[in-house]
Amino acid sequence: MLSQLQQLFQRIDKSKIFQSFVIAVIVISALTVGAHTYSLHPTAELALQWMDMGITVFFLVELIIRYIASKGFKDFFAKGWNIFDFIIVVGSLYPAAGSTVFIARLLRIFRVLRLVSMIPELRLLVNSLLKAIPQMGYIALLMFVIFYIYAAIGSMLFSEINPFLWGDVSISMLTLFRVATFEDWTDVMYETMEVYSLSWIYYLTFIFLTAFIFLNMMVGAILEVMSEEHRNARKEQTNDSDLPATQGQIAELQQQLSELTKLLKKQQ
Amino acid sequence: MLSQLQQLFQRIDKSKIFQSFVIAVIVISALTVGAHTYSLHPTAELALQWMDMGITVFFLVELIIRYIASKGFKDFFAKGWNIFDFIIVVGSLYPAAGSTVFIARLLRIFRVLRLVSMIPELRLLVNSLLKAIPQMGYIALLMFVIFYIYAAIGSMLFSEINPFLWGDVSISMLTLFRVATFEDWTDVMYETMEVYSLSWIYYLTFIFLTAFIFLNMMVGAILEVMSEEHRNARKEQTNDSDLPATQGQIAELQQQLSELTKLLKKQQ
Amino acid sequence: MLSQLQQLFQRIDKSKIFQSFVIAVIVISALTVGAHTYSLHPTAELALQWMDMGITVFFLVELIIRYIASKGFKDFFAKGWNIFDFIIVVGSLYPAAGSTVFIARLLRIFRVLRLVSMIPELRLLVNSLLKAIPQMGYIALLMFVIFYIYAAIGSMLFSEINPFLWGDVSISMLTLFRVATFEDWTDVMYETMEVYSLSWIYYLTFIFLTAFIFLNMMVGAILEVMSEEHRNARKEQTNDSDLPATQGQIAELQQQLSELTKLLKKQQ
Amino acid sequence: MLSQLQQLFQRIDKSKIFQSFVIAVIVISALTVGAHTYSLHPTAELALQWMDMGITVFFLVELIIRYIASKGFKDFFAKGWNIFDFIIVVGSLYPAAGSTVFIARLLRIFRVLRLVSMIPELRLLVNSLLKAIPQMGYIALLMFVIFYIYAAIGSMLFSEINPFLWGDVSISMLTLFRVATFEDWTDVMYETMEVYSLSWIYYLTFIFLTAFIFLNMMVGAILEVMSEEHRNARKEQTNDSDLPATQGQIAELQQQLSELTKLLKKQQ
Repeated sequence: MLSQLQQLFQRIDKSKIFQSFVIAVIVISALTVGAHTYSLHPTAELALQWMDMGITVFFLVELIIRYIASKGFKDFFAKGWNIFDFIIVVGSLYPAAGSTVFIARLLRIFRVLRLVSMIPELRLLVNSLLKAIPQMGYIALLMFVIFYIYAAIGSMLFSEINPFLWGDVSISMLTLFRVATFEDWTDVMYETMEVYSLSWIYYLTFIFLTAFIFLNMMVGAILEVMSEEHRNARKEQTNDSDLPATQGQIAELQQQLSELTKLLKKQQ
Repeated sequence: MLSQLQQLFQRIDKSKIFQSFVIAVIVISALTVGAHTYSLHPTAELALQWMDMGITVFFLVELIIRYIASKGFKDFFAKGWNIFDFIIVVGSLYPAAGSTVFIARLLRIFRVLRLVSMIPELRLLVNSLLKAIPQMGYIALLMFVIFYIYAAIGSMLFSEINPFLWGDVSISMLTLFRVATFEDWTDVMYETMEVYSLSWIYYLTFIFLTAFIFLNMMVGAILEVMSEEHRNARKEQTNDSDLPATQGQIAELQQQLSELTKLLKKQQ
Repeated sequence: MLSQLQQLFQRIDKSKIFQSFVIAVIVISALTVGAHTYSLHPTAELALQWMDMGITVFFLVELIIRYIASKGFKDFFAKGWNIFDFIIVVGSLYPAAGSTVFIARLLRIFRVLRLVSMIPELRLLVNSLLKAIPQMGYIALLMFVIFYIYAAIGSMLFSEINPFLWGDVSISMLTLFRVATFEDWTDVMYETMEVYSLSWIYYLTFIFLTAFIFLNMMVGAILEVMSEEHRNARKEQTNDSDLPATQGQIAELQQQLSELTKLLKKQQ
Repeated sequence: MLSQLQQLFQRIDKSKIFQSFVIAVIVISALTVGAHTYSLHPTAELALQWMDMGITVFFLVELIIRYIASKGFKDFFAKGWNIFDFIIVVGSLYPAAGSTVFIARLLRIFRVLRLVSMIPELRLLVNSLLKAIPQMGYIALLMFVIFYIYAAIGSMLFSEINPFLWGDVSISMLTLFRVATFEDWTDVMYETMEVYSLSWIYYLTFIFLTAFIFLNMMVGAILEVMSEEHRNARKEQTNDSDLPATQGQIAELQQQLSELTKLLKKQQ
């Protein structure tokens, strides 16, 4: 009987209609989250609370259906996206009442992310984004080293000019990030130039360094992805006989032909 | 007689002189639209009104010529650019008088867009831009999800600090778009940091997420277009005999040769 | 005798020492131009004037040497860079005295550009930049059309809110360029949103359109240059026998082999 | 006995544990540098001083171990990264006391850079960044020429409007760099437009020129790296027999075959 239920749930889980319905509920859930940010009539507030409860129950039911449709505990949690959904759904069970209403609402916001796990194209996109992270790791580390050195120098030199911007090394790093985004960076510079008139060197070298490394990072990322694409394209041509002919093969052919010629000459 | 007229109109429609004249009229139409934004002498205003009427009539005549030159209703409206022209010309027939002068003038502005439908190079450009839209659709959706989640969190946390920037979820999304363009984003951040000193985490993660996804979007777009170019280049080589020789073909050759050798050996 | 002089001048013109000396004079000329912007002691001013005269004479002499070294009027002015030098040198002959001192000084500034015509690497760079201009022409036209339409709408809607930013169509285009560079664009937007609360649509569609087209322009430029590089690389392989073997050639080989086999079979 | 010591030190130098420990010390050294920027309790200050001394000694010992592990003076200083480490370690020996505490602390900050020389991936990254510098040299020179000409014109025209921004040619270059980063550039422009209403031409041409050259620089850098990758990929295929077969080889094959055919025909 259980296996019958499992088959039924599998059919439900895979049906286009059910999936579209889940997506619709996620969108509604997102809208209720958004609606909470407006000041609403008490009646509307109450309606939202009932809706929220309904959505929570629906998500729980949907997760249970998917769990039963799977081949058991291990199989279900082997997929990263299932763990992702599980955490979000369980997280939103947190009661939205009393003093914890803030945390509960925060957890409910993340239900919008279930859109990513429901739409295959978004899932693919996020997967490919995650793959790009490690290749950027070392560049991020290099960037951090540069930021740290400049921040240490900056807070040593400028902390008395403007403690709000250069008070300590962590505030200085935030200020440098601001400079790197070109956000009112000249205000920061002009202020320190009044004391140290050569401090433009500090800012210009920093901007050139970060821009230069960022440019190279981008080029590197593009090349990385491209070479991977090439590799994949080559792998697809699993059939060796479709690869271009090599010079080595031609040499073999020539060898065969010259042997043939020798044979013929002997016959004469 | 109608077919004679049709042939005449087809010759007119295709003549370089006529097309140049149409482009000239479009440019003049654009200039009159621009002239309206300056405060003018009443005489000049009147002249502009007469010119505007003349341009409207000319565009109508030109559209009729092109319609007659075409092979009928279906053939004419099968081309997207003809529908585009039709809507713009019909739209600008709206009378520019009384209380509706504003809408009429707005509709006349779009006549400048006819430049795109008249110059083949611009038409090609716009077509290729339109083709790039779907490939960006899912990334736009992902971006929207991220913006929505951050906006919901932002308006929950900061709405009391500055309701002008974080009042509700839609205003918060606009504020986040501002942060994503680095437009005075530190002012926004410093304001909230006075209450929540750790709110820089919110801004930095948001900036990194959007910049990171945008970078990947760009790389993706470049690769997409490139691989398409490759595919097109390969399609152009319709003649199989111009493709590079494959290892499979060489193997066949070797097979043939070894059979020949066998034959010769039998003869001996 | 003239031909002897010509040969001498050719030798001078091509000598590394002379070229380095010319570059040195250009750099000194640039420094004098820069020095003029500081408030100087009258003696220094006088020295600068004498130096300026000396540089003008030297450039004239150098141009005459190069002219005599060339194969005559046509040969000399056939090269674009010679015309470029000629205009700059003749332009700087303008007397730097009296009421025209401003224009004279302006013309002397352009002598710095001779650095580009003297250093072959810079000449190459500028040539390649000039080559990239036509491919960007139609995109620039499309951008202009978009700017013009938005500017016309903008000055129609917002001219009474802030005539300084939206007074007429040309001022509006400047304001839109500012918005496109993200320069305090939210200030512009918030101001109009107070009257038309939906005007954020105007700004966001504009930003998306320009950013989207700019992105495609960049991708297009990269691809254009890349495909040209490929074409050049292919042209370098002028020797056909170095191109990869085609399937057509293999087919010919198979044909030859099968004829051979037939021949052998007949012998039996 | 010395060679035994050398072998021991080589083993230490290459052991993963020792390298991890060095990296840990570098990180601690970075943290102490950061800690100095906070106002600390005197006891903590004293602890930091002792730690700093310990780190200095450790780095010295580590350098000596590596020196002894190397094959002598020449071998050690042949590697750029060893010279780099040597300068940093010797520089941080500068006593951090009295009036020179500032310089001493500055030199200690650069010890964070040892992270780059210790982690092979970062070393590789920096090497590849250094390789990209020369290819950007001439573009930087061209940029400088453009900045210089615009700065000279700018300080000639606008120095009396705002001497703080346009006082002399060097200040003008800084202002132009600000304009190139789009940092409040419209404030600069509106100020000069009040006197010279056409000065927007100055700013727009400057922005277009720098953006255009920057775009081409980026495209150039991407292509440069890509073509190098291709070259490397081709070099890896050292074995000629793996290269694609050429049309020349096929022609040779055909030659061989036709000779064979002739031979056979003679036999008949």
